[in-house]
Amino acid sequence: MQTVSVRQVLSGDVAAGTKVTVQGWVRTRRDSKAGFSFIHLNDGSCFANLQLVASKDLPNYEEGILKLTSGASLSCIGEVVESKGRGQSLEIQAESIEVLGLVEDPDTYPIQPKQHSFEFLRTVAHLRPRTNTFGAVTRVRHAAARAVHEFFDQHGYYWVNTPIITASDAEGAGEMFRVSTLDLANLPRNDKGEIDFHQDFFGRETFLTVSGQLNVEAFCLAMSKVYTFGPTFRAENSNTTRHLAEFWMVEPEVAFADLEDLAALAENFLKFVFARVLERCGEDMAFFAERIEPEAINRLEALVNSDFVQMDYAEAVRILQASGKKFEYAPEWGVDLQTEHERFLTEQHCKAPVVVKNYPTEIKAFYMRLNDGGETVAAMDVLAPGIGEIIGGSQREERLDVLSRRMSEHGLDPSTYQWFLDLRRYGTVPHAGFGLGFERLLNYITGLGNIRDVIPYPRTPGSAPF
Amino acid sequence: MQTVSVRQVLSGDVAAGTKVTVQGWVRTRRDSKAGFSFIHLNDGSCFANLQLVASKDLPNYEEGILKLTSGASLSCIGEVVESKGRGQSLEIQAESIEVLGLVEDPDTYPIQPKQHSFEFLRTVAHLRPRTNTFGAVTRVRHAAARAVHEFFDQHGYYWVNTPIITASDAEGAGEMFRVSTLDLANLPRNDKGEIDFHQDFFGRETFLTVSGQLNVEAFCLAMSKVYTFGPTFRAENSNTTRHLAEFWMVEPEVAFADLEDLAALAENFLKFVFARVLERCGEDMAFFAERIEPEAINRLEALVNSDFVQMDYAEAVRILQASGKKFEYAPEWGVDLQTEHERFLTEQHCKAPVVVKNYPTEIKAFYMRLNDGGETVAAMDVLAPGIGEIIGGSQREERLDVLSRRMSEHGLDPSTYQWFLDLRRYGTVPHAGFGLGFERLLNYITGLGNIRDVIPYPRTPGSAPF
Repeated sequence: MQTVSVRQVLSGDVAAGTKVTVQGWVRTRRDSKAGFSFIHLNDGSCFANLQLVASKDLPNYEEGILKLTSGASLSCIGEVVESKGRGQSLEIQAESIEVLGLVEDPDTYPIQPKQHSFEFLRTVAHLRPRTNTFGAVTRVRHAAARAVHEFFDQHGYYWVNTPIITASDAEGAGEMFRVSTLDLANLPRNDKGEIDFHQDFFGRETFLTVSGQLNVEAFCLAMSKVYTFGPTFRAENSNTTRHLAEFWMVEPEVAFADLEDLAALAENFLKFVFARVLERCGEDMAFFAERIEPEAINRLEALVNSDFVQMDYAEAVRILQASGKKFEYAPEWGVDLQTEHERFLTEQHCKAPVVVKNYPTEIKAFYMRLNDGGETVAAMDVLAPGIGEIIGGSQREERLDVLSRRMSEHGLDPSTYQWFLDLRRYGTVPHAGFGLGFERLLNYITGLGNIRDVIPYPRTPGSAPF
Repeated sequence: MQTVSVRQVLSGDVAAGTKVTVQGWVRTRRDSKAGFSFIHLNDGSCFANLQLVASKDLPNYEEGILKLTSGASLSCIGEVVESKGRGQSLEIQAESIEVLGLVEDPDTYPIQPKQHSFEFLRTVAHLRPRTNTFGAVTRVRHAAARAVHEFFDQHGYYWVNTPIITASDAEGAGEMFRVSTLDLANLPRNDKGEIDFHQDFFGRETFLTVSGQLNVEAFCLAMSKVYTFGPTFRAENSNTTRHLAEFWMVEPEVAFADLEDLAALAENFLKFVFARVLERCGEDMAFFAERIEPEAINRLEALVNSDFVQMDYAEAVRILQASGKKFEYAPEWGVDLQTEHERFLTEQHCKAPVVVKNYPTEIKAFYMRLNDGGETVAAMDVLAPGIGEIIGGSQREERLDVLSRRMSEHGLDPSTYQWFLDLRRYGTVPHAGFGLGFERLLNYITGLGNIRDVIPYPRTPGSAPF
């Protein structure tokens, strides 16, 4: 006999009349006066529950089935039948139900069949995948990650996993976590009394990476089209809805490309990922639209069908200044755009996703390509309605002399970046890339406002219980 | 006009007679007496080079084309034509060649067009993707990773990314790297003079994960079928061909499954991944078979077409003892199998991949399911000809009382694992999972003997230059 998932039954993969085994966890049990119990079973394979109909004539009805509470696990053999009840088209007429695991003290079980606060659920992250919301998040996260790999594979990109432990600071962009095997109780010291990192595991100070970009450029300048998709880290002491100490980044890097090519890549990429999630996670997205963010589906569909607007940073500032709108921070050339500015541009002015290009040199990273005149660099941000910036990227400075000068200006030690300069010394080419925070993308897709609710195990400064 | 990759041209995607742009890096340049230069161009899209034929009549022939050395980059416009020379069917008749980047001091360029030692290439990891071997490794790594995700997606598994920074030690299996933001020069101390980890970023001691298994079990007991594919870390001070401080692991975890189900999963998984790599990376695999390991293709094909043999550990020991073969370590019940034992079983005795099951309790981890009698646990190792163990897994101990007792015996602090015990307290079910070191898999696929040659950036104790 076939063991099938709830998804297989409900999607009609299994013909009515077939005898099957289904397994999962009880969401609810309702007992009718007519001597039947209706058990809603979830196995995580899809959003919906499968209804099992168990008659009081089953031998373990009193001793087993009537003890099933929310969260209990079971294995059921039965026939797939057309449902007479409302809310489902197919159900299982149970021939036997084996109770696999009960819930110890059901009254204190953290995942009661009722609505829980997100704050509470973060404290029981090991159990929250058993809720509707976090089951849906898990499936959407999977579908989005699949779409990321699928998109790049179809477009001839190779996945490269850049180092997690690194000796260099990719951007000077964030605080870093130190990685060490030194014995803190007995730190080795050198002649000068300084901590002797020569005795640390890698013979020098090492940290968790803040971005794979610099490392992936080396592969870009050999394989032409590459991308990273891996964890990155920021030790920022920020307990906000937008910061994570540990998060996943998607970073494509493409050779023989300029800022125009990169903007097109970002547009195609976002449209592909959103279309795939809508296609593969219809039920989950319907749930998010119903319970979390009414626009969750509409805004993804709108983006998929939109043409992205492109404008220079200078034009964006002019538009903001001319808007007559009172912003908390006055828009001004030379100052980075705030979320309020980004959202005005994309939601009210353009009513479409916007790619803002060519930012002031002063406010951007050393590796971005200097435009003629030197006032701006070939950087871009992609802004989406409802969230603002979702992608940031740039054409890279491929000219050895310009890059060396820019690094000096930023006070970077050339000896640490010798290998990075080498890439410009040997067959340099124009190249460009962007970075996308995967959790931020998932915030946008699901409509969930807190970034800790789209990562499997949330942690905050002061708390990493797992 | 179309910009196309070398792969697109050589695979026949572009019809002869089409005018295209191709871009890449020079591998070699040969000048004929008849006034033509033949440039072999590589762009990383495939193993083979594309031949460009440049006539001395091109305006920049003397000043540009004759200065192209190995590693220089260019952009070429030309017509795809049938090749008259040997070794390729199609080539490009160049109409123009733009030199993008020359090689500074070609005589000292590290990647000369000759064979380099792997030891040397590890010291120039940022340039080694420009060699035949490491281009091929990058493409095979990509194809294998794609196959991992594809296999699990097709079989209804969801990808879960478990925490990299963790407060728990998954197995007690390996030395861990500490992750900290404490100022080493001024370590905070508590009343007792001990280092005060309450002041560290997460309010406690944290480390880099050695395995995502424990964390992914929580998702398994809600979603039924899940897997991790992410980086893991071991701070072992071993500079061998088999150890990495940072490596990627694949860890499926499946509910309602026992050891038999797991063995079948491992067999199907390996066959799928190998078949996909053979299918997608024919040229690269041919290179590995020609230059690295003559059996590289044969042994993958043999495995795909084999039936895995299953036997108990006890039987394996009996076979080894009865073999009459002189091993360095005498096989004995209660002692783990050595690689020499594993290879004898799979290469000589069974002449097929072997799944060894039910190992002595003493030599296995606390979370593996205790078999009746208690002498063995439901663990398995998959052994493959040519390498030995390639996968290790087990059914998990799903019984709360047994697991609690086993943890006490191992001296583990229950308070750290409260959440892990919860999974057995609330709707526990039989479940099982395995772990596969992705780099070890790639060693097997490529035939490369050193694990540092299948990871993009190799690092050793004492050296992490990037």
